[in-house]
Amino acid sequence: MIKKTLKVNGITRTVIAASDESLANVLRGQMGLTGTKVGCGQGQCGCCNVILDEKLVRSCVTQMAKVPDGASVVTIEGVGTPDSLHPLQLAWIVHGGSQCGFCSPGFIVSSKALLAENPNPTRDEVRDWFQVHRNACRCTGYKQLVDAVMDGARVMRGEMKAEDLMFKIPEDGKIWGTGYPRPTAVAKVTGTLDYGADLGLKMPPETLHLALVQAKVSHAKIKSIDTSAAEAMPGVFKVVTGKDIKGKNRITGLITFASNLGDGWDRPILCDEKIHQYGDAMAIVCAESEGQARAAAEKVKVEIEELPAYMSAPAAMAEDAMEIHPGTPNIYYIQKIAKGGDTRPVFEKADVVVEDDFFVGRQPHMPMEPDVGCAYLDDEGRLYIHSKSIGLGLHAAMIAPGLGVDVGKLVMVQNPAGGTFGYKFSPTMEALVGAACLATGRPVFLRYDYHQQMTYTGKRSPFFVNMRFAADKAGKLLAMETDWSVDHGPYSEFGDLLTLRGAQFMGAGYDIPCIRGEGRTVCTNHAWGSAFRAYGSPQSEFSSEVLMDELAEKLGLDPLELRYKNVYRAGSTTPTGQTPEVLTLPGLLDALRPKYQAAKAKAQAASTDQVKRGVGISIGIYGCGIDGPDASAVRIELNPDNGVTMYNTWEDHGQGADMGTLGTTHQALRPLGLTPDRIRLVMNDTSLAPNSGPSGGSRQQVVTGRAIQAACELLMAAMRKGDGTYRTYDEMKAENIPTGYDGKWTVPATMCDENGQGAPFAVYMYGVFMAEVAVELATGKASVEKMTLVADIGKVNNRLVTDGQLYGGMAQGIGLALTEDFEDIQKHSTLMGAGFPYAKQIPDHMELIYVETPRPEGPFGAAGVGELPLTSPHAAIINAIHNACGVRITRLPALPEKILAGLKQ
Amino acid sequence: MIKKTLKVNGITRTVIAASDESLANVLRGQMGLTGTKVGCGQGQCGCCNVILDEKLVRSCVTQMAKVPDGASVVTIEGVGTPDSLHPLQLAWIVHGGSQCGFCSPGFIVSSKALLAENPNPTRDEVRDWFQVHRNACRCTGYKQLVDAVMDGARVMRGEMKAEDLMFKIPEDGKIWGTGYPRPTAVAKVTGTLDYGADLGLKMPPETLHLALVQAKVSHAKIKSIDTSAAEAMPGVFKVVTGKDIKGKNRITGLITFASNLGDGWDRPILCDEKIHQYGDAMAIVCAESEGQARAAAEKVKVEIEELPAYMSAPAAMAEDAMEIHPGTPNIYYIQKIAKGGDTRPVFEKADVVVEDDFFVGRQPHMPMEPDVGCAYLDDEGRLYIHSKSIGLGLHAAMIAPGLGVDVGKLVMVQNPAGGTFGYKFSPTMEALVGAACLATGRPVFLRYDYHQQMTYTGKRSPFFVNMRFAADKAGKLLAMETDWSVDHGPYSEFGDLLTLRGAQFMGAGYDIPCIRGEGRTVCTNHAWGSAFRAYGSPQSEFSSEVLMDELAEKLGLDPLELRYKNVYRAGSTTPTGQTPEVLTLPGLLDALRPKYQAAKAKAQAASTDQVKRGVGISIGIYGCGIDGPDASAVRIELNPDNGVTMYNTWEDHGQGADMGTLGTTHQALRPLGLTPDRIRLVMNDTSLAPNSGPSGGSRQQVVTGRAIQAACELLMAAMRKGDGTYRTYDEMKAENIPTGYDGKWTVPATMCDENGQGAPFAVYMYGVFMAEVAVELATGKASVEKMTLVADIGKVNNRLVTDGQLYGGMAQGIGLALTEDFEDIQKHSTLMGAGFPYAKQIPDHMELIYVETPRPEGPFGAAGVGELPLTSPHAAIINAIHNACGVRITRLPALPEKILAGLKQ
Repeated sequence: MIKKTLKVNGITRTVIAASDESLANVLRGQMGLTGTKVGCGQGQCGCCNVILDEKLVRSCVTQMAKVPDGASVVTIEGVGTPDSLHPLQLAWIVHGGSQCGFCSPGFIVSSKALLAENPNPTRDEVRDWFQVHRNACRCTGYKQLVDAVMDGARVMRGEMKAEDLMFKIPEDGKIWGTGYPRPTAVAKVTGTLDYGADLGLKMPPETLHLALVQAKVSHAKIKSIDTSAAEAMPGVFKVVTGKDIKGKNRITGLITFASNLGDGWDRPILCDEKIHQYGDAMAIVCAESEGQARAAAEKVKVEIEELPAYMSAPAAMAEDAMEIHPGTPNIYYIQKIAKGGDTRPVFEKADVVVEDDFFVGRQPHMPMEPDVGCAYLDDEGRLYIHSKSIGLGLHAAMIAPGLGVDVGKLVMVQNPAGGTFGYKFSPTMEALVGAACLATGRPVFLRYDYHQQMTYTGKRSPFFVNMRFAADKAGKLLAMETDWSVDHGPYSEFGDLLTLRGAQFMGAGYDIPCIRGEGRTVCTNHAWGSAFRAYGSPQSEFSSEVLMDELAEKLGLDPLELRYKNVYRAGSTTPTGQTPEVLTLPGLLDALRPKYQAAKAKAQAASTDQVKRGVGISIGIYGCGIDGPDASAVRIELNPDNGVTMYNTWEDHGQGADMGTLGTTHQALRPLGLTPDRIRLVMNDTSLAPNSGPSGGSRQQVVTGRAIQAACELLMAAMRKGDGTYRTYDEMKAENIPTGYDGKWTVPATMCDENGQGAPFAVYMYGVFMAEVAVELATGKASVEKMTLVADIGKVNNRLVTDGQLYGGMAQGIGLALTEDFEDIQKHSTLMGAGFPYAKQIPDHMELIYVETPRPEGPFGAAGVGELPLTSPHAAIINAIHNACGVRITRLPALPEKILAGLKQ
Repeated sequence: MIKKTLKVNGITRTVIAASDESLANVLRGQMGLTGTKVGCGQGQCGCCNVILDEKLVRSCVTQMAKVPDGASVVTIEGVGTPDSLHPLQLAWIVHGGSQCGFCSPGFIVSSKALLAENPNPTRDEVRDWFQVHRNACRCTGYKQLVDAVMDGARVMRGEMKAEDLMFKIPEDGKIWGTGYPRPTAVAKVTGTLDYGADLGLKMPPETLHLALVQAKVSHAKIKSIDTSAAEAMPGVFKVVTGKDIKGKNRITGLITFASNLGDGWDRPILCDEKIHQYGDAMAIVCAESEGQARAAAEKVKVEIEELPAYMSAPAAMAEDAMEIHPGTPNIYYIQKIAKGGDTRPVFEKADVVVEDDFFVGRQPHMPMEPDVGCAYLDDEGRLYIHSKSIGLGLHAAMIAPGLGVDVGKLVMVQNPAGGTFGYKFSPTMEALVGAACLATGRPVFLRYDYHQQMTYTGKRSPFFVNMRFAADKAGKLLAMETDWSVDHGPYSEFGDLLTLRGAQFMGAGYDIPCIRGEGRTVCTNHAWGSAFRAYGSPQSEFSSEVLMDELAEKLGLDPLELRYKNVYRAGSTTPTGQTPEVLTLPGLLDALRPKYQAAKAKAQAASTDQVKRGVGISIGIYGCGIDGPDASAVRIELNPDNGVTMYNTWEDHGQGADMGTLGTTHQALRPLGLTPDRIRLVMNDTSLAPNSGPSGGSRQQVVTGRAIQAACELLMAAMRKGDGTYRTYDEMKAENIPTGYDGKWTVPATMCDENGQGAPFAVYMYGVFMAEVAVELATGKASVEKMTLVADIGKVNNRLVTDGQLYGGMAQGIGLALTEDFEDIQKHSTLMGAGFPYAKQIPDHMELIYVETPRPEGPFGAAGVGELPLTSPHAAIINAIHNACGVRITRLPALPEKILAGLKQ
């Protein structure tokens, strides 16, 4: 131990700490300053930035021994407070700098340090600073953060007044379509929003801290688990194994399709018979502190018999491969697609045929906040589980039987989440904390470190695709044939649904009369497949969008004009045979065309012998909803003060569920003339709010948005008097009129049949991406210099939210195209190892062009937004690389060595 | 567990807590809001006041189940911050409202709630509010708090500007003698100062929490201690007993006098053979949480054989009483006094003789902060002990051998202390936390609850006194005879020194030619005797000051005039035969006389058949220092920025050691022209600062003050150039002149001999008290309506500090006179049970008149201050009660039933 006196945010504090403890842990765990966040814990994300003696440091890798006695420390709490925001915090709010908000304290502290050194930086100097100091953001795409620093600096230099920077509600009182800041923004920029790990530090003293005993191999039989040495370690209360779990000890995948050969009960809560993937949990040590739990976890002895590990779909599909789940074939689901007439004769007669193989890999989500959760029993015996779940109702159903808990006695709560991007569509630790709580009777808390986040949460499932187009000379698509194998890892949850996405989105955007194909879901021993933004489309549309460029090349046509010829028009149908709800794609291409031509000219002019530049485009499409008659429920109540409370479970990845709810509710209640602050939100606690369904598939703005609209209309109808004015709360009560209303809505859509035909979504999002890239010939290094997206997501609820979604999604597309991977479990288990894109990897030049075609089924004409920007931006980039240097990458990521190899051919 | 959403200081927080947990513990322990303090934990002190949904509540007794979901909570952190003080906080600072500061957050929050209801209260409404809401302060005497509320309210109402309220440094730059606010004031009023229990919540996660296994009887043999059941309890790491202690397992009393019959090794760290008093610790449970430790402590089985308990000096002195410490007589020290010729012939011939018996009881200190501390081993193997110790060097010597630690490997640190008033002159938990740390190797933390604070810390030792005066008809004192028995409880530490105080201060102030007497220290089974403000003088001077009034009555003289006749003048000597260093008492009485006469007239006029009013006076005297050649050391260093750092161990009860150090250093360095903010203080850590001796006996301003002066003079001499200007740090370094200097000073005084004769102090404090009281004849209830103190404490360093000491000491005198007691261990073990004086028990009318006679040996003429106000104010009150209603109380406290009984006689 060492004793130091520190001046923390101007306040003198005596600190006693282990000399090898991190400054971050001391600030957070000991001093209660949870505004400083710990993301990666490895100095790679900057969430933990603080200013130590005037210098920016990453506090997670700053040992207390290195902190000078008497040093001054400035944390986000010392930058500004909710009542007294620093100009940078204000700028962060008005520029939408905080989406999930987990990186905001670190970025703002970092920016403060920058401006102390350089009060008038250029945009590039800001980006350089963030790059050098490894400030990582996974939500925004960075542009808004640079905008915020520039404006914050202007205010600090006295060139702009803080009041002028603030958002002002328009005179008509309407916030729909504006940049009204999200309700959680102030808390996010001031570090006062408690994420899961912050709540963990604020748990009751009875709380047990958990550590997992995890597999270090990918496939094995478990022969024995000996917990005795661990149970003798200091502070250990109990070591929980599968034997302690009262229920089935399995998480059910809620099999969607009858033709699935599995039963969905393949994922153990705690592995008892077999290890199916690296990281699989076999026991939970419950101790008084995290340190004690982790130390004891090392002492649990697991005897195993290692088995051959099948680390890809082809390996697991091999003839001699054993069944990973004995009794269920490794290929456990097949999805066919058959649209129109047989494709064989079409291909035989077609003027042109192009064919290629494509591979989009195991993209890791890399949220800034590693997975985290807690559980406890309330005074009525209900089991509460808090997590980052974006599917509260879904997860309750998936884990209750495994835990042996009546689902009515299970309450799911979402903590503010520091980014999920879909990985939390799967349960991760929910059942683990639930099991530990039930086995000990005490509150429990579990926090993953970043290695655990990377290795023991789901990943995007790789697709191995073969695709063929048949076209006529003029470029009109005549037929498509597809074959795709989905490496879904060992656990089946939603694997069938994902495979269906191949049928739905390969060739999406184009009117293709005949389609035949087959996809299959394959069980492997690599990381289990979970949802990831744009779920299935980045694999599907990458294939068809790159193949379209191959077709254009073969035909000598411009890729944009080839697409223009084939996109949905009157009479077109989607690959599933559905008539598009709006016909916007020609317009989007028309809007892009002049920019595209200018970009091409510019690229050509700017190409040199060293650096070649090129332009690529792609079409992106995704549905809003879970397939078919997806439903949502919300509740509204008129309050005694004549404001309202909206209850829902519109879970928040960080995308802005709060703003989505507020904007929609406010718009729906416009006749009442309420200001936004009169609308209270109670969200994401299943004991308090109805089931609005999961936040996946860009469904919430549409499906829950319509439920909100319905609830508001019921309330207003009840309040409306004969003269068109509205009753007050007191008048409602006096007349005995109910003040609370449930709003429900079900999507008018149908499930796809065994041939992949149906009308699974009532609303789609449409976009055209354009990438401008540079390729360094000597190294093969490609970089994106500009991204443009012409997007039709219907009417926009909130511009800060949609901008943030579109910029951020494209940034993830750049990562997917160029660097991101999770193939090598060790090498790819850190942010930097997995190719996380920092500020300088994402261009400052990103342009959004909105085309707002109102959606007939969308609330106030809105569609969703979240998935669109990651449907196919990577395809545009890959097409641009080909355009620049003639190298066509079909297996992502397009690492420099691959491009270089192509250049050398 | 329950989950609630609270709006805490405007920030929405999710809280998970046990439904029977207190709001205070949730705010402090879970949410890290340690500005809210827990004093009594029983709703009797208001330190934990917060505003819950606009209503003031005591959060320590507010269960979470009672906190409404969605409630708003305002804590001190939400009132204002160091950068943005609330007007009440500013007013608290400039009025010296924070001494120890532990009650400040609760008072300020309370005042905010008051002003929300009543923005323009009268002083009496403020006092009523504090009374009703049980806001307790032990330091200030309340007057300054009312002043602060009045001024804070003025600023809030816009009648005064905050700037006008702020303290401003005079143009000449001199802060000596001004009301410069103490350096810790801002932290105290904003709740950002970490007291021991706050630090306990900020300890490293490895920390073990301790609970004591304590005696529930007062005297017994210990037959066995069985820890096995406790060790099997959850979270228990170890149960430490005496057997685990490597050293002597005894705290040494550092015997002062050779004639002491004990050896000083009578106090066990953990009792192993015998229980000597209620509360004695026998084992320490070390567990992961306090709850676990306390639960397990209940499971330790101690088998005892109860012995007769001797609960007073007379009981322990009885012929048949067994020796409490076998081998040492219960009367273990005798102090004689013999001054001048034999008294017997004088008494035989004297015109008048008065004689009476007096008893001043076991006054409890009742600091707002219960005892608390922690210990840990540093990376060099040194044992650090943090506590409320006001004698760091002293305590190291007292506990090191018992622990078996080399004193060079023991570092003592004082946490900011929430009041001690002397009880921390004794080690309390230091050895306990040290033993637990050594036995476990882990950091440990121990917090007493208020019952433990009351029952297991030292108390003022009762004196049983018999005293006789012989005088001539004119009232001139001729001789005094005294006999006093000191009930010192079971532990001998400083018991001999205390008994000597009887010789030094009985009859102090008067020139008495002949004195004979004997005092004895008696071992009993009641609470051990520790230092308490004015140590020994409240017992000694109560006796002589009440007896002076009896003499005046007998002679028909006015009590003031009788005193005037006898006080020290040229040629006088003190009871120890010393010549007073200044002759100020006649002047003090002259200053009081007109006020006294007016008060008497007013009392007479205001007396009714129901309520009688009266006036009483007393003289108070105390020495500044520990007897004899008391010494102090400090160190000063010139800093690279040409400021200085002052290193010392001027420990802080809450009296203002920071301001004492700063004021003295600043004054000593005036030639350098430093502003106060350039003087850095490093205090109260024995690894960083020299031994300045304990903070007892009002010694620090004089003894350490002189050491500071010496250090500053050495530094300035080294810095001084030939032309009278001063070298900079860089110039010193360039010329190779040392930049650090040790300052030392030793008091030119002598120890008293076996007859109590000597010159033990070089500087004394002098005062005259006047009490104006009312006695309700129907009930016997006495109340003090005004206190006046004419004080000569030499030149004043800081007026806020000295005012605070004098008001606060007199308030404790009122408590001592009328209500405070710790005789009945159960009944008197709470604040209210022990007669704690709340706002309405202390008059708003307290007047201080300073006569600043410079002390030749004091730094810049200063004496000490802390003890003076509690030397004899209670005697003035008792004299006033007699003056009002003719009842003379000689056995404190003067409870209504005693006065009523007197009235009935």
